[in-house]
Amino acid sequence: MRSVTASFNILPGKEAEAEAAITKLVAAVEGNEPGALIYAWHRHVKDPSRILVFEVYADDDAVQAHRETAHLAEFQQCFSRKSAIFDPDSVKIERWDRLAAVQR
Amino acid sequence: MRSVTASFNILPGKEAEAEAAITKLVAAVEGNEPGALIYAWHRHVKDPSRILVFEVYADDDAVQAHRETAHLAEFQQCFSRKSAIFDPDSVKIERWDRLAAVQR
Repeated sequence: MRSVTASFNILPGKEAEAEAAITKLVAAVEGNEPGALIYAWHRHVKDPSRILVFEVYADDDAVQAHRETAHLAEFQQCFSRKSAIFDPDSVKIERWDRLAAVQR
Repeated sequence: MRSVTASFNILPGKEAEAEAAITKLVAAVEGNEPGALIYAWHRHVKDPSRILVFEVYADDDAVQAHRETAHLAEFQQCFSRKSAIFDPDSVKIERWDRLAAVQR
C-alpha cells in the first residue's frame, strides 16, 4: 500500500472552476483506476482555499498508472500559468509509509 | 463525515516506543470506536521522524467520542515533558471538509 498527500491552494475567485475540475477528476479516477483505493479531496475548514488530497494506492504500479493517465494530465492544466485555477507555487506532494490503520 | 489530520515528530531515539504506543492506540480505536471510519498512521518516506495521522469520523459525535476516550488520554502522555516520545511543539491538528472522494 502506498500513501501520498498533495496540497495546494485555489487561486482567488476560482472556487467554482476548481470544484468542477475536482469533480471530473475524481469521477475519472473512480471509473478507471481500480488500484486507487482512497482518493479523497478536502478543503481546510478554516482556510477553504487550501486543498488536501489524501491518496492510497494498492502498490507502486497503481501510483505509476495514476501519474500516466490522461485525466491527470488534463487536470494538471489547472496549474498552468495560462489557465490557472490552482497556485502552482503552493504545490506540496509527500509520500508516506503506512504504520498501522483502522479502515471500515 | 469529518476529516482530521494530525502531524508531529518522533523524538530522536524513541522510534520503538513510538511504534508500541501507536500500535496500542490503533487497536483501541479499532475495538472501541465504530464511528472512526479511517484512522491511518504514517511515517514520512524521506523523514521517518515525521508522523501523519489521517482520520475520518462518521460525524461530530464520533470526533467528540474519540477525544474523550481513555486510550487517547493515555496516548497523550507520550507528549508530556516527563515521558516524551513525541515532540509536543511539533503538533499540528487540522480539520478538513470533504469535497469528493473515491474509497474502496
